[in-house]
Amino acid sequence: MTAQPPVHGDVAVLVPAAGMGVRMGPGAPKALRRLAGVPLLVHAVRRLCAAPSTGLVVVAAPPGAVADVEAMLTPVVPGSGPGLRVVAGGETRQESVAAALSAVPAEFDLVLVHDAARALAPPELVESVAAALRGGSAAVVPALPVVDTIKQVGTAGQIVATVDREALRAVQTPQGFRRAVLEAAHAAATRSHTDDAGLVERAGTRVDTVPGDDRALKITRPFDLLVAEALLARDGRGRA
Amino acid sequence: MTAQPPVHGDVAVLVPAAGMGVRMGPGAPKALRRLAGVPLLVHAVRRLCAAPSTGLVVVAAPPGAVADVEAMLTPVVPGSGPGLRVVAGGETRQESVAAALSAVPAEFDLVLVHDAARALAPPELVESVAAALRGGSAAVVPALPVVDTIKQVGTAGQIVATVDREALRAVQTPQGFRRAVLEAAHAAATRSHTDDAGLVERAGTRVDTVPGDDRALKITRPFDLLVAEALLARDGRGRA
Repeated sequence: MTAQPPVHGDVAVLVPAAGMGVRMGPGAPKALRRLAGVPLLVHAVRRLCAAPSTGLVVVAAPPGAVADVEAMLTPVVPGSGPGLRVVAGGETRQESVAAALSAVPAEFDLVLVHDAARALAPPELVESVAAALRGGSAAVVPALPVVDTIKQVGTAGQIVATVDREALRAVQTPQGFRRAVLEAAHAAATRSHTDDAGLVERAGTRVDTVPGDDRALKITRPFDLLVAEALLARDGRGRA
Repeated sequence: MTAQPPVHGDVAVLVPAAGMGVRMGPGAPKALRRLAGVPLLVHAVRRLCAAPSTGLVVVAAPPGAVADVEAMLTPVVPGSGPGLRVVAGGETRQESVAAALSAVPAEFDLVLVHDAARALAPPELVESVAAALRGGSAAVVPALPVVDTIKQVGTAGQIVATVDREALRAVQTPQGFRRAVLEAAHAAATRSHTDDAGLVERAGTRVDTVPGDDRALKITRPFDLLVAEALLARDGRGRA
């Protein structure tokens, strides 16, 4: 017998996927757009389920498409793997996260929120976020150094300042939280947001970082789709 | 007869290419690394020469490789196209820009500085930078919106603040300058820099922006090379 890695299954991952994307043209909800013939949401859920830490995936689907999304995702989740719940999302991303969060059973203390548009985020990223939470972080986000020179512009498009990029990070998902921290931040939120870690920050909780991953890029524009296709081709359909 | 676009040829483009890249592993100077079998510098110069505004390209080569770089680039520059000069670069990027600038004949009032690692920057980007200079800008940089959520981190890797990305831009090259503005900024520079527009900003000159281009990505890491290869495959070798 060979040694097996410990299986945790102690993390619930929320995937708000009710939004309508407009940047890749009108039509299907953003998370149902296809990459190599497969909806982004399927790519995302497949990778989440491949992480040993994942015990439950809760997807907030477009309200009219809950049954369809459930039918689409059920074959993706291995029988021996994590649980899957599909719930109706809300009007905003924030409402969808709240709807998914309320469907998480009480035994899950660690909750991740993942953007389905980051469809190629690898299972390893789930593991490193989960490990940081188990190590004591209240909130943690994957973050990459900023490689471009970043400048601040004024209203006429003129450069106002060069920003010191050494201290900047581009943050990704999945973002991880102790459940109580995420619940409190959502309860306190007064305006709509697109970044759960930002909510938690404003609530005064320290947010830590773990190294991000190029594969967790956000796939919203045709250029991103080209990059994502190249990543899939490099890593092979089975692994990527 | 069809109408032809006006040919300007009034712009000199400097390409500091003497640096040794370390991020893609040791070996050849960074600008001589290959993309689809062709050095980045060749890709870059080919596209610069395809821009009607380009009247002269001045490459600062590794001091020991001036003749080799000249031999490599001469077939790339069409006989009816812009002039080409290859000069010995310096120890730093700043010295290489200065060496290239001193090789530009007095008749060129408009000078662009381009990073050879942005090897797929299209001719259209040269044209839009040149057009902004002709329209009265003293300095101009291509700039793209920042799509990622950007945060500022502290020394322990914790998040210190979420930066308002609406006012941020990722800047690219070619960056364009009235010659006197670039010369004055270089003469006043007290420390080494990697961003000519930043020098000009510090000298108090207004720097304008034009829309950047995804194809002008900086190719330094293996991931960037993957993206660049996908762009080449999409656009075809002749056009990309």
